[in-house]
Amino acid sequence: MVLYLDGRRRYLTRVKRGSTLHTHKGYLAHDDLIGKAFGSPIQSSLGARFVALKPTLRDYLRKLARRTQVMYPKDMALLLVYANIGPGARVVEAGTGSGALTSLLAFYVKPEGRVYSYETHGEFLETARRNLERTGLLEFVTLKEGDVTQGIEETQVDAVVLDLATPWLVVPYAFKALKPSGAFASFSPTIEQVVKTVEVLNHHGFVDLETVECMTRRYQVERGRTRPETLAVAHTGYLTFGRKAVSQHGE
Amino acid sequence: MVLYLDGRRRYLTRVKRGSTLHTHKGYLAHDDLIGKAFGSPIQSSLGARFVALKPTLRDYLRKLARRTQVMYPKDMALLLVYANIGPGARVVEAGTGSGALTSLLAFYVKPEGRVYSYETHGEFLETARRNLERTGLLEFVTLKEGDVTQGIEETQVDAVVLDLATPWLVVPYAFKALKPSGAFASFSPTIEQVVKTVEVLNHHGFVDLETVECMTRRYQVERGRTRPETLAVAHTGYLTFGRKAVSQHGE
Amino acid sequence: MVLYLDGRRRYLTRVKRGSTLHTHKGYLAHDDLIGKAFGSPIQSSLGARFVALKPTLRDYLRKLARRTQVMYPKDMALLLVYANIGPGARVVEAGTGSGALTSLLAFYVKPEGRVYSYETHGEFLETARRNLERTGLLEFVTLKEGDVTQGIEETQVDAVVLDLATPWLVVPYAFKALKPSGAFASFSPTIEQVVKTVEVLNHHGFVDLETVECMTRRYQVERGRTRPETLAVAHTGYLTFGRKAVSQHGE
Amino acid sequence: MVLYLDGRRRYLTRVKRGSTLHTHKGYLAHDDLIGKAFGSPIQSSLGARFVALKPTLRDYLRKLARRTQVMYPKDMALLLVYANIGPGARVVEAGTGSGALTSLLAFYVKPEGRVYSYETHGEFLETARRNLERTGLLEFVTLKEGDVTQGIEETQVDAVVLDLATPWLVVPYAFKALKPSGAFASFSPTIEQVVKTVEVLNHHGFVDLETVECMTRRYQVERGRTRPETLAVAHTGYLTFGRKAVSQHGE
Repeated sequence: MVLYLDGRRRYLTRVKRGSTLHTHKGYLAHDDLIGKAFGSPIQSSLGARFVALKPTLRDYLRKLARRTQVMYPKDMALLLVYANIGPGARVVEAGTGSGALTSLLAFYVKPEGRVYSYETHGEFLETARRNLERTGLLEFVTLKEGDVTQGIEETQVDAVVLDLATPWLVVPYAFKALKPSGAFASFSPTIEQVVKTVEVLNHHGFVDLETVECMTRRYQVERGRTRPETLAVAHTGYLTFGRKAVSQHGE
Repeated sequence: MVLYLDGRRRYLTRVKRGSTLHTHKGYLAHDDLIGKAFGSPIQSSLGARFVALKPTLRDYLRKLARRTQVMYPKDMALLLVYANIGPGARVVEAGTGSGALTSLLAFYVKPEGRVYSYETHGEFLETARRNLERTGLLEFVTLKEGDVTQGIEETQVDAVVLDLATPWLVVPYAFKALKPSGAFASFSPTIEQVVKTVEVLNHHGFVDLETVECMTRRYQVERGRTRPETLAVAHTGYLTFGRKAVSQHGE
Repeated sequence: MVLYLDGRRRYLTRVKRGSTLHTHKGYLAHDDLIGKAFGSPIQSSLGARFVALKPTLRDYLRKLARRTQVMYPKDMALLLVYANIGPGARVVEAGTGSGALTSLLAFYVKPEGRVYSYETHGEFLETARRNLERTGLLEFVTLKEGDVTQGIEETQVDAVVLDLATPWLVVPYAFKALKPSGAFASFSPTIEQVVKTVEVLNHHGFVDLETVECMTRRYQVERGRTRPETLAVAHTGYLTFGRKAVSQHGE
Repeated sequence: MVLYLDGRRRYLTRVKRGSTLHTHKGYLAHDDLIGKAFGSPIQSSLGARFVALKPTLRDYLRKLARRTQVMYPKDMALLLVYANIGPGARVVEAGTGSGALTSLLAFYVKPEGRVYSYETHGEFLETARRNLERTGLLEFVTLKEGDVTQGIEETQVDAVVLDLATPWLVVPYAFKALKPSGAFASFSPTIEQVVKTVEVLNHHGFVDLETVECMTRRYQVERGRTRPETLAVAHTGYLTFGRKAVSQHGE
């Protein structure tokens, strides 16, 4: 359940009988939350008015993002739509990390599609597994300990999605794994990663290449005081896309 | 089929025996396209090298966007993820227009979800119906001639999504139509539309309000010549989100 | 003197015999700074390498900006050039505040020009006077306690420059104060201030109206790690410009 | 004289007895313009209402920019202030091009300062000379045919300002030409130019390095219809700054 206080403060919590949520605006007894309809108001011990909301995918992403992730929901959203990933798609993803992007992909390929998520660090996989279980999305994901710069086992996939340090090393394996016309998508914080990746994509016959940056700006909206917020995240990373073309005589 | 020439030129075409695609780089006989595997190269009469690609959702959106639409795929992507719309969701949308956003919503709520799309202009509905048929998404959509500023017939929906001139007039009906905790999302080109809508959302007890602008910038990537493209669309519109909260005694 | 350590740390200090500059990288005795050539390296007590730099206008602005100012050097730079303010110009400015914009204007109109700077709060004027003395620019400025929403005493000025809450109230007096063809320029954080000001400018016969926002993004530049900085100031304010037109029969 | 019609249309013209200015809104006889006060309205033969304005520096820049220039007034403004260039400064500039940046620099260093502007193409120098004569700024400029990647003749200058393809080749000569603590500033469209230049600046002991991009967005301001303009120039170039530090034993 999300306990929403205001634009800056929200608490994603798993309701457990006997537990208590402590906030600097007072505490809330979990027992009072049980059976509460989503959307209902809840008063804290200090009288602050919270609203009980149903957690969204983005609420989970917000939580995961506090840790290692640099990709933001804005980037994931663009990646999803630009790489044509939707219900039923089979997608290879690497690296898994805390499972934030994995969750988003699983949320959108379900119920028929599947995400094959590779991670070289076994300990990250355990964290990701727990996060995916919590969001109920684990059944749509195959978590794999492995290094996509050495190879990809799946074939005929609809998309290969990368958030790792050396995406250019994965391009040949992504080419083999993809269906013809399938989508390659990569997220990179630095411009040098982009340049190398685009060079290798061109070399391997990917077409429809595109590199794009997505920036968002939030607004304070209030009659007479409307303006963009002062501080913003000015850069997370660049997104690079391509699609697999094949030669006349097959691949 | 999409016939892709380069970053600026692509042709979305329905392959028909006996037809010809004329481009300024020569023509292509549709008969040569039949049975062609996606990803394959095709030569035009003038020797230009095209690649046959499977149309993506975004290819269709690009086509539709040439007409009346101001919302771009970047905006639709953000709206989708921020409003937590995914497979299985029931969504009310207005106005239908040419069906671009309708297509994207249907693509992502399928196969279990449904889009109820309202439009006041009957002639737009016919265009939208043809476009949705073409993309195979019509079965997930209910097209309705009607004015959401007068009322919404559906109830317990997961999201209400607006791209129309007076979103603030729809807020009371969106509140009734939504499940508690459900998402309101609205796209508006001008800041005055945003201010009015946010005022009415606050008045009707929506919480978790957020107004955000999404800007993208494409890059020319080529070692030694890497830079953002010179011209860009600097503004399409603002996205405003909120979630339905309910009072202690129901709505 | 500026003691520059790195991109994030610099110290603007007035060198005084016997004084000491304390930093978290050790201290520097002012006596060692005396007679030091600009550009020279200086070691702190802990061995950190500082460089002695000559203070620039922007170093002073940085110092002043720590207090009340929302206008950034980027905004002042645009204002300066777009309002055609250069050496020899006579400029009315309000409000003075800590004197940051006043300093910049004085720096650029000297030696023949003059800045008439109005401030309603007498205590701000004292701060501004000290700051202008320190930068050696006071002789080009007339500091005036007064309210430009009630009137402007100067006439035939080249530009009227505003950074205050209600710029629209000043428009009629700016019109009287300006030479024909002279420039009006106003900085406002909110869009509602802009809309009101533009309406009144139109009403009073100003032409060549323009509202513009200036955004900057700094880069981390290092081969293999080049990228925009993560956080940025996403909004300071909008700049609105206009020029005085006159009717056939004079003003 | 500038004949201003509206936000999109203005005509910078030299008034000559007997001449006629033709616009698609009718013509204006130059004889009617003679003796006209700045700010006055003028009717065209078709009844369109123009306003006679005094040309500003930016009006001239607009004119020059139509030709070869990629640097915009926004970039020049930032460069001016960030490089601490003001009245009295001695500045080396290259390449001259059509003289747009030269004009801005001359405008701001006058009357005591001087711009030494290098250009390898003699034919550009002639164009620049005519443009500078027209704006009355030629007396503050020394135009030089020469290649700054081979050397700079001036010494003890306050700033070296570059808008050319290989700024990194100029860094050693800029170092010699500058006063200690003096400013280096360079404008480059591509990121690879920036990376190379920053590397060489670091190597030659420049400090206070900074790379920044300046983006502007214009607004359509009208109550009920206020919004950023749809299209914008999304990229002109990156600005890189540094300041000369010296070793203990001189340079």
